[in-house]
Amino acid sequence: MKEKLTIIKVGGKIVEEEETLHRLLADFSAIGGHKLLVHGGGRSATRLAARLGIESKMVNGRRITDAETLQVVTMVYGGLVNKNIVAGLQARGVNAIGLTGADMDVIRSVKRPVREVDYGFVGDVEKVNADFLATLIRGGMVPVMAPLTHDGQGSMLNTNADTIAGETAKALAPLFDVTLVYCFEKKGVLLDENDDDSVIPVITPQDFKNYVEQGVVQGGMIPKLENSFSAIDAGVTQVIITQASAIGGEGGTIIRK
Amino acid sequence: MKEKLTIIKVGGKIVEEEETLHRLLADFSAIGGHKLLVHGGGRSATRLAARLGIESKMVNGRRITDAETLQVVTMVYGGLVNKNIVAGLQARGVNAIGLTGADMDVIRSVKRPVREVDYGFVGDVEKVNADFLATLIRGGMVPVMAPLTHDGQGSMLNTNADTIAGETAKALAPLFDVTLVYCFEKKGVLLDENDDDSVIPVITPQDFKNYVEQGVVQGGMIPKLENSFSAIDAGVTQVIITQASAIGGEGGTIIRK
Repeated sequence: MKEKLTIIKVGGKIVEEEETLHRLLADFSAIGGHKLLVHGGGRSATRLAARLGIESKMVNGRRITDAETLQVVTMVYGGLVNKNIVAGLQARGVNAIGLTGADMDVIRSVKRPVREVDYGFVGDVEKVNADFLATLIRGGMVPVMAPLTHDGQGSMLNTNADTIAGETAKALAPLFDVTLVYCFEKKGVLLDENDDDSVIPVITPQDFKNYVEQGVVQGGMIPKLENSFSAIDAGVTQVIITQASAIGGEGGTIIRK
Repeated sequence: MKEKLTIIKVGGKIVEEEETLHRLLADFSAIGGHKLLVHGGGRSATRLAARLGIESKMVNGRRITDAETLQVVTMVYGGLVNKNIVAGLQARGVNAIGLTGADMDVIRSVKRPVREVDYGFVGDVEKVNADFLATLIRGGMVPVMAPLTHDGQGSMLNTNADTIAGETAKALAPLFDVTLVYCFEKKGVLLDENDDDSVIPVITPQDFKNYVEQGVVQGGMIPKLENSFSAIDAGVTQVIITQASAIGGEGGTIIRK
């Protein structure tokens, strides 16, 4: 019988505002058993870049990461946002340890090949070092992972936080009974985007296909759900899509086979 | 018989220039046995602060750390400088893990009380969690420590890198046979400041007293030597003051009882 592990992914918006961050830290601290947090930080990166006169270029919702932008995200994700969360969790008795993919070689990635778009210093995950993470987790530590990886050749790489969460969940699935929670602005995947209470309680692969055909599920939710099914296929017990304020509670959309 | 541990402290100047950083990474990688690196980053912090229009105020060589400056140093020390070093060491086969004092509660400090000067968010080290560090080190990890601590109440604190190195060496002295190496610009403590080859090979407490009286040792070297003797008194085997380019080689000034 594997021990339970809850992996929570929260976006930049939640960790960057004092009030929502405090709520998140309290809710996350209250989760029992093993846990791991993956955070974003895009808004702070955009803000710092703007103050430094560096233009933030996005293509398909992804940041084009030139050399200067890589420095900005390394500072913001790996430094400012990560350490604020770690210090905040420590204050609440959670033995947090901040990690990027470079630390202990936890996540190695390859620089995304240039096809139609040159994303610059963006990494596609190659390998998650599950054994090291498991040792930390079993030792009572709570990893707090920034959306940064490394290429094994000395360069950091900017990596999507949803992907970090999904790949980490998959890698840890053989070792733990993993629940992966993707937090976003809504209570769950909505049947009617204008009705915040129209949360779809469960989505199976067949439901997903139907919802996409009907246009119920569209935009950024499609890759999020594809990530979720990929995690389930790799042995993750369940994936939940919900609001950060619902962490540890009921509700949200459960993704399952 | 305790295992050997080498703790190297390097200043900002060395880790901030591409060329000296590469040399340091190569030299540090070549050191055999257990090791730990403590780095500064003050010049980068000053540079980023200037670009953001934040004035860097120094008193007695120490940075006055207001709330905005704390954000800058958390980004620069904990993010940019730390992760560049970690990724660089990983590329050389060293299993580095970047840490601030908040991570795993490794170094807890208290905000410096306001006396003549209000240093702001500056921490005086209260407790180093030697057991956690020892577990990592014995597990083959190489801690790379940024000059940041936390107060246990959710706030990061800016902390002098020499102090981090000294306090970490002291805390680990009961568990390892510790050599602490302070790297600075010169080959060692000089008898004649105008002659770079006039390195004093050994300084005992009595020598120190004499050199201070004679004015041979002055300025920033005095607290560095005081830190060194304090480390020796706490059980650190030896302290060496030398150039980064001499790491792992001969030379420098040895501080001993």
